[in-house]
Amino acid sequence: MAIPAQSAATTTMATFTRMVKGQVRHYSAPLDMAIPASKQKYIPSSGSYPKGFSVSGTHVGVKASNTKFPDLALISSETPCSAAAVFTTNKFQAAPVQVSRKILQTRQGQGIRSVVINSGCANAVTGKGGLEDATNMGAKVDECHGLSGEEPSTLVMSTGVIGQRLPISKILAKIPTAHSTLSSTHDAWLSTARAICTTDTFPKLLSTTFTLPSSPGRTYNLAGMTKGAGMIHPNMATLLGVLCTDAPITAPALSALLKHAVSRSFNAISVDGDTSTNDTIAILANGAAGGAPITHPNRSDDYTAMQAVLTDFTQRLSQLVVRDGEGATKFVTVRVQNSPCYDSAKLIASTIARSPLVKTALYGRDANWGRILCAVGYTQGVKDGVVVPDRTSVSFRPLDGSPELKLLVNGEPEQVDEARAAVILQEEDLEIVVDLGGGEQGDKGRGGEEAVYWFCDFSHEYVTINGDYRT
Amino acid sequence: MAIPAQSAATTTMATFTRMVKGQVRHYSAPLDMAIPASKQKYIPSSGSYPKGFSVSGTHVGVKASNTKFPDLALISSETPCSAAAVFTTNKFQAAPVQVSRKILQTRQGQGIRSVVINSGCANAVTGKGGLEDATNMGAKVDECHGLSGEEPSTLVMSTGVIGQRLPISKILAKIPTAHSTLSSTHDAWLSTARAICTTDTFPKLLSTTFTLPSSPGRTYNLAGMTKGAGMIHPNMATLLGVLCTDAPITAPALSALLKHAVSRSFNAISVDGDTSTNDTIAILANGAAGGAPITHPNRSDDYTAMQAVLTDFTQRLSQLVVRDGEGATKFVTVRVQNSPCYDSAKLIASTIARSPLVKTALYGRDANWGRILCAVGYTQGVKDGVVVPDRTSVSFRPLDGSPELKLLVNGEPEQVDEARAAVILQEEDLEIVVDLGGGEQGDKGRGGEEAVYWFCDFSHEYVTINGDYRT
Repeated sequence: MAIPAQSAATTTMATFTRMVKGQVRHYSAPLDMAIPASKQKYIPSSGSYPKGFSVSGTHVGVKASNTKFPDLALISSETPCSAAAVFTTNKFQAAPVQVSRKILQTRQGQGIRSVVINSGCANAVTGKGGLEDATNMGAKVDECHGLSGEEPSTLVMSTGVIGQRLPISKILAKIPTAHSTLSSTHDAWLSTARAICTTDTFPKLLSTTFTLPSSPGRTYNLAGMTKGAGMIHPNMATLLGVLCTDAPITAPALSALLKHAVSRSFNAISVDGDTSTNDTIAILANGAAGGAPITHPNRSDDYTAMQAVLTDFTQRLSQLVVRDGEGATKFVTVRVQNSPCYDSAKLIASTIARSPLVKTALYGRDANWGRILCAVGYTQGVKDGVVVPDRTSVSFRPLDGSPELKLLVNGEPEQVDEARAAVILQEEDLEIVVDLGGGEQGDKGRGGEEAVYWFCDFSHEYVTINGDYRT
Repeated sequence: MAIPAQSAATTTMATFTRMVKGQVRHYSAPLDMAIPASKQKYIPSSGSYPKGFSVSGTHVGVKASNTKFPDLALISSETPCSAAAVFTTNKFQAAPVQVSRKILQTRQGQGIRSVVINSGCANAVTGKGGLEDATNMGAKVDECHGLSGEEPSTLVMSTGVIGQRLPISKILAKIPTAHSTLSSTHDAWLSTARAICTTDTFPKLLSTTFTLPSSPGRTYNLAGMTKGAGMIHPNMATLLGVLCTDAPITAPALSALLKHAVSRSFNAISVDGDTSTNDTIAILANGAAGGAPITHPNRSDDYTAMQAVLTDFTQRLSQLVVRDGEGATKFVTVRVQNSPCYDSAKLIASTIARSPLVKTALYGRDANWGRILCAVGYTQGVKDGVVVPDRTSVSFRPLDGSPELKLLVNGEPEQVDEARAAVILQEEDLEIVVDLGGGEQGDKGRGGEEAVYWFCDFSHEYVTINGDYRT
């Protein structure tokens, strides 16, 4: 079977990591934590972490086969935080999703102190017992913080196999250890990011500094970690993410900022289009770096600046999930531009990103614009007048700055330079541009809206991993 | 790579057929028409064809590499027919779709005489020239029938590569041959069904007889042919189908009957979820067998009987497309039952059928109910109150009549008998039952609606075919 040389190297390393000690069918962080050579570049060697936060990654052994590696993550702030979260829209919501949602509602997004996360078991489809387990996990963290008498202030997340109860006594017994080892070092952040991994081949951690217009001399920090999404798990994929900043942001502002950012990042990536019972992205802001609070709906300059920082940051963080898509050999950006409607543009981008025909063609390095056009044409829910066949153009944009390769211009096929297409498709990274020419309003100025999606290809490796051989 | 023995046999034969003479990247009926041994059972050796219809399959060589096999299909009735068609909803509609739609509109579904179809070139994204070509194809058939001065009465379909013009002069030159060889024999029907194939590994032809309540002594005939759909074509899949009956049915009744049937058959199958620019299912009824016309909206007993016959027939015909899904090793029926709403049930069935996680698990023979449940939960557009987690059950229904294997009962995971699951999953055919327990209305009687979808799995072979290696 003719697997291109580059992808073979990538997937062989990834498989190697997962295959060690027969872990292919298992559901916790890989026993062998060796990171594939091709993914080493995504691991930061240092970071700028938000003041007042400390974190830890602790070994519990949620899965009995995990005798060594951290599978319990604790993120805590010295002082109460504003907090917000975006949860899965799946109707089957895991216990920790239900519990965390209720805590945020009860507290109206204020006074949150911690996030506790286990990998190895998703605590999903576990009934009333599962809800008690999730509640008890958070309560134990609060107890360690000396906050037992108050409303719960710890958000809870879980990821791993569904339909099984947590080994809750083991977890509760280790939470004091997790609390006593809280630290603000780079190594602690990295260990925490590792503790939330399941089949991820590398921990996903980013941090950045920024300033706000109202006090340009003051430096703020933003850090975030995430773990793999859709179709990368042998049973059910989960996307989790935690963001922490020392900027002062009110709860309503934080909620609006997170929704905006997630819509353009974690909700604009596709590995396979499946959505899990546990997906959760949470953000905590403790204000420890000082300055005037960012409020909402008063869209101050600070709010606008914060929105740009957070959106860019979550985009970079979510892209790491695509980089780690199971069996992926390509990282593809699809940009739908000059649309009269943002929502329609995003639906089109999403449909292209999810098309198995497009994804396999990219794996096969085929400049198959027909499949892209076809996906544009069958996207459901697009407003009338957005897609006008003779205003639609498709091109490949190489990432080396050379001119784009036009495939279709205003509905007319181009004579494609196959040699150049082959060169462009050799690269791991590719951008597909679909230009809607302004739709029916094209004549009145082509300005329009733009939506971007990031996705990976479908490979033989993907089928192997998710076929989940019992042999 | 551990491909199960049965599927290896299937896919090896299929690949062999397609690989002969380097046809993997080509877009016409396979040069080697040998039918895989595993598919021979789907080829009828005789049939009962509708009176007054004659058909032919003719070699044109739409693709220059095809020097031998039929690629032009003509279906004609001696007398004018009522006709109806269901077309692709893709916004990029191929020229023959536009032309046929207009003919049906102009004639209000009456006086149709023929359908002409070429394979090897889809005549899609071909501008005004393409529209002229499609019009001329139909006009040439009308001319052969001596109908030149009248409104066009021939529907036109094309399937194959997009973005290329038809070799129209070659096609027009062969239409008189197609006309002069029209025949009503079984061999002619089979040759015609072959002429519309592209990457299909076998021609898809069915026929049946039936009676109507108003004249139980009279026998009617119904025949149909179809070709492969979604994700079975290296460039763009097309689903085409033509149905012919000698029952008398008015045009409005025929249109309503076809919509009902296609909704429950061709629009209830999924190979990969992609929808092409050319998809068309047409039906012609010439009334040659006599009797009183079936009318609409007067839902007579005859109408009801005809609806049952046509729906069952189109289901069996469309299932042949799933049987021929590229790389498919499984034929899966998903039944969503006890739903308070048919449309929601169908959306859920469709989402399960399209989930790559579900499709790869089935390929891997994994009783992975979590992925099925997850797809139920993230289905978009489902009405409130339809999916109630603690009323939802999932089971596998073996086709040997043995009791179903319960995986999830009222939202609680079952202890799955893995040995029995393995036996059930060894079979090529499987039925998945999702029982919604009546949704929120479950207490008021579990009657409810049911929707069924048929789909196939995702295999390594699928990725190989659609990755479309250039090497």
